[in-house]
Amino acid sequence: MSAPVVGIVMGSNSDWPVMRAAAEALDEFGVDYEADVVSAHRMPTEMIAYGEQAAERGLRVIVAGAGGAAHLPGMLASVTTLPVIGVPVPLKYLDGMDSLLSIVQMPAGVPVATVSIGGARNAGLLAARILASAPDEEGARLRAAMRDFQVELRDQAHAKGAALRAEVAREDE
Amino acid sequence: MSAPVVGIVMGSNSDWPVMRAAAEALDEFGVDYEADVVSAHRMPTEMIAYGEQAAERGLRVIVAGAGGAAHLPGMLASVTTLPVIGVPVPLKYLDGMDSLLSIVQMPAGVPVATVSIGGARNAGLLAARILASAPDEEGARLRAAMRDFQVELRDQAHAKGAALRAEVAREDE
Amino acid sequence: MSAPVVGIVMGSNSDWPVMRAAAEALDEFGVDYEADVVSAHRMPTEMIAYGEQAAERGLRVIVAGAGGAAHLPGMLASVTTLPVIGVPVPLKYLDGMDSLLSIVQMPAGVPVATVSIGGARNAGLLAARILASAPDEEGARLRAAMRDFQVELRDQAHAKGAALRAEVAREDE
Amino acid sequence: MSAPVVGIVMGSNSDWPVMRAAAEALDEFGVDYEADVVSAHRMPTEMIAYGEQAAERGLRVIVAGAGGAAHLPGMLASVTTLPVIGVPVPLKYLDGMDSLLSIVQMPAGVPVATVSIGGARNAGLLAARILASAPDEEGARLRAAMRDFQVELRDQAHAKGAALRAEVAREDE
Amino acid sequence: MSAPVVGIVMGSNSDWPVMRAAAEALDEFGVDYEADVVSAHRMPTEMIAYGEQAAERGLRVIVAGAGGAAHLPGMLASVTTLPVIGVPVPLKYLDGMDSLLSIVQMPAGVPVATVSIGGARNAGLLAARILASAPDEEGARLRAAMRDFQVELRDQAHAKGAALRAEVAREDE
Amino acid sequence: MSAPVVGIVMGSNSDWPVMRAAAEALDEFGVDYEADVVSAHRMPTEMIAYGEQAAERGLRVIVAGAGGAAHLPGMLASVTTLPVIGVPVPLKYLDGMDSLLSIVQMPAGVPVATVSIGGARNAGLLAARILASAPDEEGARLRAAMRDFQVELRDQAHAKGAALRAEVAREDE
Amino acid sequence: MSAPVVGIVMGSNSDWPVMRAAAEALDEFGVDYEADVVSAHRMPTEMIAYGEQAAERGLRVIVAGAGGAAHLPGMLASVTTLPVIGVPVPLKYLDGMDSLLSIVQMPAGVPVATVSIGGARNAGLLAARILASAPDEEGARLRAAMRDFQVELRDQAHAKGAALRAEVAREDE
Amino acid sequence: MSAPVVGIVMGSNSDWPVMRAAAEALDEFGVDYEADVVSAHRMPTEMIAYGEQAAERGLRVIVAGAGGAAHLPGMLASVTTLPVIGVPVPLKYLDGMDSLLSIVQMPAGVPVATVSIGGARNAGLLAARILASAPDEEGARLRAAMRDFQVELRDQAHAKGAALRAEVAREDE
Repeated sequence: MSAPVVGIVMGSNSDWPVMRAAAEALDEFGVDYEADVVSAHRMPTEMIAYGEQAAERGLRVIVAGAGGAAHLPGMLASVTTLPVIGVPVPLKYLDGMDSLLSIVQMPAGVPVATVSIGGARNAGLLAARILASAPDEEGARLRAAMRDFQVELRDQAHAKGAALRAEVAREDE
Repeated sequence: MSAPVVGIVMGSNSDWPVMRAAAEALDEFGVDYEADVVSAHRMPTEMIAYGEQAAERGLRVIVAGAGGAAHLPGMLASVTTLPVIGVPVPLKYLDGMDSLLSIVQMPAGVPVATVSIGGARNAGLLAARILASAPDEEGARLRAAMRDFQVELRDQAHAKGAALRAEVAREDE
Repeated sequence: MSAPVVGIVMGSNSDWPVMRAAAEALDEFGVDYEADVVSAHRMPTEMIAYGEQAAERGLRVIVAGAGGAAHLPGMLASVTTLPVIGVPVPLKYLDGMDSLLSIVQMPAGVPVATVSIGGARNAGLLAARILASAPDEEGARLRAAMRDFQVELRDQAHAKGAALRAEVAREDE
Repeated sequence: MSAPVVGIVMGSNSDWPVMRAAAEALDEFGVDYEADVVSAHRMPTEMIAYGEQAAERGLRVIVAGAGGAAHLPGMLASVTTLPVIGVPVPLKYLDGMDSLLSIVQMPAGVPVATVSIGGARNAGLLAARILASAPDEEGARLRAAMRDFQVELRDQAHAKGAALRAEVAREDE
Repeated sequence: MSAPVVGIVMGSNSDWPVMRAAAEALDEFGVDYEADVVSAHRMPTEMIAYGEQAAERGLRVIVAGAGGAAHLPGMLASVTTLPVIGVPVPLKYLDGMDSLLSIVQMPAGVPVATVSIGGARNAGLLAARILASAPDEEGARLRAAMRDFQVELRDQAHAKGAALRAEVAREDE
Repeated sequence: MSAPVVGIVMGSNSDWPVMRAAAEALDEFGVDYEADVVSAHRMPTEMIAYGEQAAERGLRVIVAGAGGAAHLPGMLASVTTLPVIGVPVPLKYLDGMDSLLSIVQMPAGVPVATVSIGGARNAGLLAARILASAPDEEGARLRAAMRDFQVELRDQAHAKGAALRAEVAREDE
Repeated sequence: MSAPVVGIVMGSNSDWPVMRAAAEALDEFGVDYEADVVSAHRMPTEMIAYGEQAAERGLRVIVAGAGGAAHLPGMLASVTTLPVIGVPVPLKYLDGMDSLLSIVQMPAGVPVATVSIGGARNAGLLAARILASAPDEEGARLRAAMRDFQVELRDQAHAKGAALRAEVAREDE
Repeated sequence: MSAPVVGIVMGSNSDWPVMRAAAEALDEFGVDYEADVVSAHRMPTEMIAYGEQAAERGLRVIVAGAGGAAHLPGMLASVTTLPVIGVPVPLKYLDGMDSLLSIVQMPAGVPVATVSIGGARNAGLLAARILASAPDEEGARLRAAMRDFQVELRDQAHAKGAALRAEVAREDE
């Protein structure tokens, strides 16, 4: 495995069942990543170090999942120049609305690219799009792969349509 | 002025019109405080230093106001052992609901004592109550002052009742 | 057991499964507490008496849990000079949003230190921080204990990171 | 003026601009009322006394307005057997949603008859309906008056319809 | 059974599991009631007839439960002079917030006495309080019964407190 | 003017400033309409009569605006077979969220075609689309007119784009 | 089966369990429909083609179900002159509130007839009402069928009332 | 001016007062952009063409602002491989909550990088970060510029702190 270019971080390994979908998306696109526990509230000093060193360690995008008063994505964004993607992880109450607002409502100056509640897969895909936007060979490879992926999405939708029409026809008999 | 025991911090001096109510409450109780701009997102390293040094500098309570994706109170709470009081500052949209949830929904392990949206005066009063709960002379002084304050609140309410009854009687004639 | 310094109260013993987390946190810090049912709506006279006598009975902090139109923390705060910590207990509907707003949105003059929905553990930890802020020996003991606790939180986060990295590596093979 | 049968109470005379609409509705129905400041948080002892003595003083309905963490209607309901009508008074933020939930979400055992946000006029009308439901002469008088009131509402709606049709016709020319 | 004085109505018998709590509360107070399906949307003409005839049939209070776009309580209130109590019945989505707003936010002129989401028991108790406010013998009987009920609530709360203290003591050993 | 085929109704002529946008849209499409005050709560009997007679009077679509506990669209839908379009009119508080939920969350069996908060213009356009879907000459005329309208929308958007590009270029100099 | 006049579309066949209720309603009214997967996000070009060709293919109404950032109904409405009915499909979080707002809050010019969260049955019934409003034989047939349907709803409600009264009487013995 | 690498699009030039903050941020970083009106609902065919051709025209990031049922960012994301940044533009009602949910809650497969309500400046900064993450000279230039920008943010915060401390000291005299 070559050096990771995406860092997938979360406050606890208990978030992994949600966040692994980001990793899986990156696997599908052949993008190397690392996954780690980085907690804004339980290890703030290390969290800041992680953000400060991310670029020089070769990371190009950070994906950060957090729930409730979700401070991890925004704090990382304040100590790195990299694009940070925030995944609102839903907790037991409030269906992730607290997580969403805590991540997306960042003050001017410090953006976080927020995806949907529990939307770790889209976080991975967004990271791939960001890498795909670069004017290098890897970017070109990823753009082509993203186009293939979109064609596949469309073909799956077509297949689902065929399945639905068949089911409706069956019920109709 | 003796050394401050309460630190009132906020992300920008533009929050002072809201946050000064905390200072005024402490003034009423003769509690020394400092006020400063400490931004989680714009000066994260200094923010962490502020929290880490707060106790050794003699602070006993921190009052932190923040709006939107309000990370300041929670981040300070993660790097100090002091009680941190969070004031949700309302921004242009959402009436402070985002600020409230970003402050109050802290994960287990790192509490923030949250007051109402825009409730800086209550933050100051809560700081006074916390100091009043200590088993020292200053605590005793503050407990007595808080009792006087509560009597005054009651007397003002009585006066408002008299004023209302008079107004209703006047309208009645 | 020495005299309790924290009173943990709730409207019904059916809230104990939520509220015991406050007691457990205080146990970890060696803080003596009492737990009782004090209902604002079912025993208002006794509730007021509880608040009025709390300080003279030696309590220094009150932790009050309540749900729905949650009046207990605010009413206690109006009849004591002690800091009152409110725990929004979620009921069957609304995910505790009603409990949160009923507790946190107190009028100027009567603060309640509100923690997260269902956040009884943080209420206990906040009580410990308040006691730790006092300039006495017990305060010093608690400050040190809180520092140890924060170190432990960090170490646990590190361990979770190691576990996650191991899991990801295993899946990778 | 004979003895009041409805008590209109609120936490401060600053609520009178909202709450006077309750008084005006009672005036229209010839129902005697008193208006006073009774604050759950600033004069809890007097508030409880107000509720406990309301019935023996001849009141038959209480109308209580409150905003934010609105505890007055529910606390009064816990110390009286009278029906208590709660008016959610909107504060500067949240459009009265906090006031509504703090009043309406009462636990089983202690009902509050809640009306709309800022709906003091309907609180007065509801008090009139409650008095009208009694099997005495005053009840009969009020039932007739309420029927007349409803006829008047209908006639006003008819007149508004005529006005609208005329306006539309005018625009049409 | 004598003639019913309270009408408990709902849009479907599937609401009975929620609404029966209103009936049980009235049973405890010895108040006669009727229960029926009256649907604003499925039998609007009969619904209006029900409201128009309620008073002359001897009903003195109507309790109406409804969910979603809950129109039954408000529509009944527009065609009767009786006090109408609305119970917001929670549906599959939105936790009853739609039901609550559809019931409580009535326009000026047509009040509905709204209780908590799913709060049918409180609707029954509120009906009992309304009947108890009348200046007749039955009113006196119900006032006394309501006082007894409140004493019982208090005694149960005391018992719960004893149970909780015992449980905590047991755990402590 | 020929006989109206769309009825635009609202609870008060004070809703006309919002609702006239529906009339104006119909004017643009040459669709005849009537406008009237029909109040579910102030004239329930006439409201039901309006709905019951709408089809036989030649109406083919009803547009109903209402705010707060907005019962008019749903009640009309229960007494007519015509499609009923509901316009949530925003009131002073809650930004029309109560109006929206009270209109859109209708029970199975009685649909209301709901448009956006304050979206009276879209209600008129939806009525035009419904008439345009009929297999008659007028339908064909309206379909063509709707296509022209959509082309015009597109052309206006193009013009706005040109204006924006010009403005940006100007600023750039 | 004759040519379909209603198109029922959704983003995935996994929405069919919700959306089939629309089809069943149309079956009850003898209205021919087609059902298909048309995804705004996975097959945007085909989605636009579907909308553009819908009218010329003989469709007269489109029913579109979508969840989350639900763009399908609104996008179809922008490329057809047909009335489009939107069904907010609830996803795992937020109870369909995101779906509702994404569908109903359309800008002026492009209306979507929105029904309740998960309200596919009402979408089918609304489509039937729209077809019933046409001045042709099929319209007349559907108007009569809709009247019968409404009578049946009423009769079912009556039967439920009888069942409820019987159950209450039984419990009473 | 060299060829634009960021496309800033919105549904109407009336959104420019909000969206220009994105352009200004890009100006500060010396990034070339274009700004245009691209409406999902008023010119869907051109909107899709814009998205499909964006990459080949040399754009590397799209910033799309939209309000209400905000479909533009998500629809563009479905027809391009570029990263799309969505800006929820607040409308007259709901404070942008509808815009936020319509943009952020995208289904798996089609991510939109969402920023705060009205947060166009952060959208521009996020675009700059994305370009800065590329492994080319321009990326290196932008990374350095972003570091300078962050230093400036910190320095401004320091200056604000000095201003606040001075103001507090002045008041203190």
